[in-house]
Amino acid sequence: MAQVEFWYEFASSYSYPATMRVEALAADRGVGLVWRPFLLGPLFAGQGWRDSPFNLFPVKGRYMWRDLERICGALGLPLRRPESFPQNSLLAARVALALEDALRPAFSRAVYRAEFGQGQPIDAPATLRPLLAEIGVAPDPLLARAVEDANKAALKAQTARAVALGLPGAPCLTTADGEVFWGNDRLEQGLDWARVHDPVAE
Amino acid sequence: MAQVEFWYEFASSYSYPATMRVEALAADRGVGLVWRPFLLGPLFAGQGWRDSPFNLFPVKGRYMWRDLERICGALGLPLRRPESFPQNSLLAARVALALEDALRPAFSRAVYRAEFGQGQPIDAPATLRPLLAEIGVAPDPLLARAVEDANKAALKAQTARAVALGLPGAPCLTTADGEVFWGNDRLEQGLDWARVHDPVAE
Repeated sequence: MAQVEFWYEFASSYSYPATMRVEALAADRGVGLVWRPFLLGPLFAGQGWRDSPFNLFPVKGRYMWRDLERICGALGLPLRRPESFPQNSLLAARVALALEDALRPAFSRAVYRAEFGQGQPIDAPATLRPLLAEIGVAPDPLLARAVEDANKAALKAQTARAVALGLPGAPCLTTADGEVFWGNDRLEQGLDWARVHDPVAE
Repeated sequence: MAQVEFWYEFASSYSYPATMRVEALAADRGVGLVWRPFLLGPLFAGQGWRDSPFNLFPVKGRYMWRDLERICGALGLPLRRPESFPQNSLLAARVALALEDALRPAFSRAVYRAEFGQGQPIDAPATLRPLLAEIGVAPDPLLARAVEDANKAALKAQTARAVALGLPGAPCLTTADGEVFWGNDRLEQGLDWARVHDPVAE
């Protein structure tokens, strides 16, 4: 079974529809997914940006919000622009990484729904606790584990790998043969590529 | 018949596949196209860029060239990276605008084929002359008309309109109801939108 890595950042607007779509698209194609939450901050810093490019370049920002409205409208996804953008996604990313693999997709979707569907602040433990409870995880022990050194280091390492892979933003799919597909609008193409170039199937 | 405006810049890499694809996609949907060559320079200057963002931000640039290879590969379009990027597209844009409307699409495709398919310099009259001859236009009178004040002013006005419309880059489709769709990967979506929201059909 071909496998791709799905790279997403909780502060990233286009990661919202991608996260809601990717699992069904992968299942349709018989491609396995490895969920990789990471932080865009170090990538952006490497390009000289200390804020989201959607804030630094307002023409792009205005376009992005309207584009996202159309995308969410077509998918039937609620969209409520968070009061501040981008949100501080550090805690949510640490929590996502601290979870066991099988729970990461459902938690990640719940974070995006809270953030971009309901406009909630995702840096607040009060937002994340009920999302953890919903997937059957006791919130406080997990929140404690999320900020342990080992988990912090794991998120740093995962982000360093995203930089090393040359990801230009989020979301991205990366394939076993080294391809990068950037954007919600490249999910289908990346999954199709992985299926066709699957080293096991060949 | 619904109509969209197709905005393209001869220096823009993603405008190459878009220009080769857009006419058939529009015809399939019964949507009319108005071809709008323009210059990205003033848009980029407004965002503080004095070069292509693909040069200013090398991670994005590396991604773009590989992405373009995959796109052209899938379409069967030749791709030969020009020695300098972005090319100076001023003369080609002026020539495209000086042509009568019916000849603009064929000339524009020919410029992109020369530039990104064969790696030729499009700022050279020697490159543009045979492309004009191919579409049955006497090259020298047209090249002379292209640099007359009226035509220069027309290109400036067209570019100013692109800025006013909020285009974030090239290529773009714009619709009668004020939507902007940016990118080669948004052509289908923009044309579908125009068909569904066609003010005449409603």
